[in-house]
Amino acid sequence: MTKSRLEAFSDGVIAIIITIMVLELKVPHSAELAALVPLVPGLLSYVLSFAFVGIYWNNHHHMLHASRFVNGPVLWANLHLLFWLSLVPFVTSWMGENQFARVPVALYGAVMLMCGIAYAILVRCLIALHGADSTLAHAIGRDRKGNLSIALYAIAIPLAFVSESGWYPTAGSSGF
Amino acid sequence: MTKSRLEAFSDGVIAIIITIMVLELKVPHSAELAALVPLVPGLLSYVLSFAFVGIYWNNHHHMLHASRFVNGPVLWANLHLLFWLSLVPFVTSWMGENQFARVPVALYGAVMLMCGIAYAILVRCLIALHGADSTLAHAIGRDRKGNLSIALYAIAIPLAFVSESGWYPTAGSSGF
Amino acid sequence: MTKSRLEAFSDGVIAIIITIMVLELKVPHSAELAALVPLVPGLLSYVLSFAFVGIYWNNHHHMLHASRFVNGPVLWANLHLLFWLSLVPFVTSWMGENQFARVPVALYGAVMLMCGIAYAILVRCLIALHGADSTLAHAIGRDRKGNLSIALYAIAIPLAFVSESGWYPTAGSSGF
Amino acid sequence: MTKSRLEAFSDGVIAIIITIMVLELKVPHSAELAALVPLVPGLLSYVLSFAFVGIYWNNHHHMLHASRFVNGPVLWANLHLLFWLSLVPFVTSWMGENQFARVPVALYGAVMLMCGIAYAILVRCLIALHGADSTLAHAIGRDRKGNLSIALYAIAIPLAFVSESGWYPTAGSSGF
Repeated sequence: MTKSRLEAFSDGVIAIIITIMVLELKVPHSAELAALVPLVPGLLSYVLSFAFVGIYWNNHHHMLHASRFVNGPVLWANLHLLFWLSLVPFVTSWMGENQFARVPVALYGAVMLMCGIAYAILVRCLIALHGADSTLAHAIGRDRKGNLSIALYAIAIPLAFVSESGWYPTAGSSGF
Repeated sequence: MTKSRLEAFSDGVIAIIITIMVLELKVPHSAELAALVPLVPGLLSYVLSFAFVGIYWNNHHHMLHASRFVNGPVLWANLHLLFWLSLVPFVTSWMGENQFARVPVALYGAVMLMCGIAYAILVRCLIALHGADSTLAHAIGRDRKGNLSIALYAIAIPLAFVSESGWYPTAGSSGF
Repeated sequence: MTKSRLEAFSDGVIAIIITIMVLELKVPHSAELAALVPLVPGLLSYVLSFAFVGIYWNNHHHMLHASRFVNGPVLWANLHLLFWLSLVPFVTSWMGENQFARVPVALYGAVMLMCGIAYAILVRCLIALHGADSTLAHAIGRDRKGNLSIALYAIAIPLAFVSESGWYPTAGSSGF
Repeated sequence: MTKSRLEAFSDGVIAIIITIMVLELKVPHSAELAALVPLVPGLLSYVLSFAFVGIYWNNHHHMLHASRFVNGPVLWANLHLLFWLSLVPFVTSWMGENQFARVPVALYGAVMLMCGIAYAILVRCLIALHGADSTLAHAIGRDRKGNLSIALYAIAIPLAFVSESGWYPTAGSSGF
């Protein structure tokens, strides 16, 4: 089975995900520069997610480029990854509208964690298909960065709650 | 006539359908975790439709991969399939917002049924073009699953009404 | 200059146009079947436009398939066509929400007319590039259908107003 | 690294950007022609941005066509360009809703300026990859137009403020 349509479909879905996030930046009615100030957290949240999804597209591009073919499990692992990526606009918007409050940030991190896990599963499926001696397996062999980032997310999410209760005043209750 | 543009156009439409459904998950104003609870039916509905559309993309991918060329009737049968798939976001959203109430579920099933019928028509057009002895016809020969699922939908939709009136209290009237 | 990216970009834009129209079908709050009745004009309007845009994609597919290369004027003529097609979701929605009232129908027809003109310009640009003796020119030679439909639109739009004032009660004023 | 997927992804994102802008033209409730009058600034703003994004797609098409391969920096420079282009729908909508008032026009110009800068960076990355003697470098050698337009934007944005305070009554305060 060739990989070209898998690439095309993934490109389409990722292009839409990365672009529709901008629809969540609601246009203010006033024409004053000050009317843009409340949009700053949303814009920051958008920039972060644009970079995040862009990195995934980049990595996806490199990995599929090194692959020679795909099979059923790869198609499903890829759909699974796209599913978690498709939740990024939702959590981006929630985080931006609530000025990076505790719970939305934790959920954002959780979706990022699931994207990382889904990506790792896709990597496993591709290596299983190509064999442990393939160019692909060697190219990805140094994917310690990927595993490290999963571990960091998994640690960071509960930390968000710890730091919240111990170190700072509650953003959620102060309406920051 | 080559099939590449048919694939590209279908990929585009299906990628958009599968992605815009997430726009129906309205971001809550509150930053509390509890604010996500009312979104759970919508999320479940989204997961179901994501899988449903994903399966169609998957099958479409396999079938076109086995095809060697397309003609006018195939283009139209494909557009017909895309039309019914394009209604999936609407019925997904209606079903999710009404916590899987009877009528929205039946309509969801009806759209799924029409997708199944449209897919079967597309299969017939492709086999008619390639001949009953073609690789395609042999590959699809075991499409009993497809016909079975159409029959199941056709039975399930009226059953939704029967079960409703006989076995459970009415979801619609109880405002569940 | 190769035509593949022109095809890919056009496929993308047309796929989005044909799909976002369904976003205009607003999901009703009630879970009753009766709640769908007010959506019927919108749905009919959507079906009409889906077929209209589908026919354009189909014709575009055939014409580009018969072309061997493109140049600057073709790129611009194609963008011009995509511009008018991009207004289809707007006029579809306006016509659907106003139950096919006179003015929205006339505007819908006007946009269709402009699409037809833009398509004719694109045809001219492609023939100018390929030469009057090319396969493309011969294939399109029988484009009387295209010119006829432009003429019909141009006649139909003022007729909408004539028929309105002379034959029926005013849909706009009766609030039909 | 081949350039085809970079082209496909960019086509997808640009196709979405150019198409979703039309969603900002809110359908009026009334079926009268007069109900379209308030939409005229929004429509003009849309036409302007459609042409602007179309020119970028056109130039992107030509430049990538002349390129033979891409690398990591090119992928990132391309994502950077897509980011600024993705803000076009937002500033288009803001400018259209405020009838081309001073601040929205200046912000629109600022986003255009950033697009021009991002495009220039992408050009630099591609030339650095292909070498100063490559066909690409020669083809782009005459990119004085690009640099000129950046300079013009950079001059025009502050001018918008000067002209505002000196020559015309304040659009923002007169509620024009």
